[in-house]
Amino acid sequence: MPESLPMNGGNGVYSYSKNSQLQKEGSNVMMGMIKESILKNMDIESLLSFGKSNNALFHIVDFGCSIGPNTFIAMQHIIQTTTQKYQTQHKDTQISLEFQVSFNDHVTNDFNTLFKALPPERRYFASAVPGSFYGRLFPSRSIHFAYSCYSLQWLSKTPEDEKSRSWNKGRIHYIGASKDVTSAYVAQFEKDMEVFLNARAMEIVENGMIVMILPGIHSELDHSQAAAGFDVLKFFESSLNDMINEGIVEEALVDSFNVPLYVASPKDMTKVVKKNGYFIIEKMEIKESQSKILDEADAKSLIIHLRATLEGIFTKHFGVQITDEMFKRIMDKCEEISSWMKVEYKKASQLFVVLKRK
Amino acid sequence: MPESLPMNGGNGVYSYSKNSQLQKEGSNVMMGMIKESILKNMDIESLLSFGKSNNALFHIVDFGCSIGPNTFIAMQHIIQTTTQKYQTQHKDTQISLEFQVSFNDHVTNDFNTLFKALPPERRYFASAVPGSFYGRLFPSRSIHFAYSCYSLQWLSKTPEDEKSRSWNKGRIHYIGASKDVTSAYVAQFEKDMEVFLNARAMEIVENGMIVMILPGIHSELDHSQAAAGFDVLKFFESSLNDMINEGIVEEALVDSFNVPLYVASPKDMTKVVKKNGYFIIEKMEIKESQSKILDEADAKSLIIHLRATLEGIFTKHFGVQITDEMFKRIMDKCEEISSWMKVEYKKASQLFVVLKRK
Repeated sequence: MPESLPMNGGNGVYSYSKNSQLQKEGSNVMMGMIKESILKNMDIESLLSFGKSNNALFHIVDFGCSIGPNTFIAMQHIIQTTTQKYQTQHKDTQISLEFQVSFNDHVTNDFNTLFKALPPERRYFASAVPGSFYGRLFPSRSIHFAYSCYSLQWLSKTPEDEKSRSWNKGRIHYIGASKDVTSAYVAQFEKDMEVFLNARAMEIVENGMIVMILPGIHSELDHSQAAAGFDVLKFFESSLNDMINEGIVEEALVDSFNVPLYVASPKDMTKVVKKNGYFIIEKMEIKESQSKILDEADAKSLIIHLRATLEGIFTKHFGVQITDEMFKRIMDKCEEISSWMKVEYKKASQLFVVLKRK
Repeated sequence: MPESLPMNGGNGVYSYSKNSQLQKEGSNVMMGMIKESILKNMDIESLLSFGKSNNALFHIVDFGCSIGPNTFIAMQHIIQTTTQKYQTQHKDTQISLEFQVSFNDHVTNDFNTLFKALPPERRYFASAVPGSFYGRLFPSRSIHFAYSCYSLQWLSKTPEDEKSRSWNKGRIHYIGASKDVTSAYVAQFEKDMEVFLNARAMEIVENGMIVMILPGIHSELDHSQAAAGFDVLKFFESSLNDMINEGIVEEALVDSFNVPLYVASPKDMTKVVKKNGYFIIEKMEIKESQSKILDEADAKSLIIHLRATLEGIFTKHFGVQITDEMFKRIMDKCEEISSWMKVEYKKASQLFVVLKRK
């Protein structure tokens, strides 16, 4: 069973719904690229089955949708562009497109909040499909367009070393760690992507598309040196180490914890897609992230944002009290983090991938 | 917008998941009949589109699924029987059936609880579709088998009289009320069923089926005298009237409240289906309810059960405090209700309807 790593639910101060600005900005930058991909790479005619009816179904899935609102904006864009393309290409058609959108995320995702936030003016049939996307979720050949934004960086589980629980001693990620640790993360990423692509290959119709947006690094960078902004995890590490020294948290507990997050390069991604063999790479591009939070080196907003995203993972391992204390201590380092951001966040990038099912 | 009337969520003492025994018993009695309908009335071959693939999709929807566990049991039965029939009729086929189950209920239903309770050993792709079934929810011609158990008795809204908010003075239902009140309920039922059948007619494939199980009364009975056990609402009424007399609740508040629940007879149902015209009636049967709670005249269990079902509706109108007080007072009438049950509950019946899309 893949691990469940939901974003914070509800509407509170640290909820994902109130703190997904970074993902939104990241995805907004990419909306133009999604549009371009649909207009350039999508062959609508071949995707749809035209029976004797007056409607053809176009099924879109967001893998790792969280609880909104970013997913709604993305779905809206995809539907608008697809409709536009269809109407241009089929001016005289009597057959209209019906859209179905399936929102997928872990079973522990707060789908109740997602449902209540569904745009009332939506022009699609909405449904939710719970479960890890590292496995089958949909019937065979039932998806026309798969989308995943800022989700595939999450591994199905933390890489482990059978010999020792403290194989990544004093650290909680591969950033700054030994080569062995990075290799274990790479291996887990490759394994997970193979499972993801195999499942999607069964579910997506011939010529169907996948658009993936995720934090990424340039292929020539060293993984242990750069992680598209998640390098900030070193401040989490130092806070936890301070807490060890003060006897607030046990060393063994920190040693046995690692964040199951991998930031892929175009080279990494190309390798897994080619090995898998079911998809053609239509686009593989790395772009600089654009974000007000990052541009202004707004450390406070960044930490609140990271809390919405990461709190669940920390709480599961450390409990509420230690996690709370850790985030308080990170917040105390705001100025230091802000200075670091000014220098380091220039490296923060996004990977944009468009695949087509052979 | 149809009103949202969710059953109590979560797992607490008054939750629907812990208090749906009556529905379960009711539906268990009917499982044999569902099985019979599938074996006798369903033409699987004509339902499925066999492309060049090795799988054919069979899509089942539970309209008004609530949060489990009854829906899981019903879906399991339908899948088992369909598989059995398919395997018998297609012994040499290379094409296997894939099942998709969509769980539908109001947007305010506790889908998080439903998802967490999904049977791990299920052999279907699960999804949830939020929204009132008095409207379109699914793409055109996408459903093979529609199921609805103990949901269609809920009207989309309380019948109203424009002239007066207290048109059903001192009462909260049509039981024991004037002919005008009953007529208003009948009119609302007919309107709602027309909307329901029109929407399903678009969504269900040719030869696709609907199985509906709901509380029902014999066609020869008078609606204002019998409501398949919901006659018990008169004890709610008397408790509320006591509370008016004691100054705990305002008379106008009680006068303006009516439970949006209609118990149909085979005659009622036949009329709306025939008028609608999209479906053939394969079966229309009224059967005595069988239930341990009812057999033993177990008033306490019945009240707890009704609380899980009705609390939301009362709370929405009266607030938590008055509703709580009302249920306490009803509980105090346990013995009286038990005596009443021994006599009256012999009349409690279920309506079993099987329709096929023309």
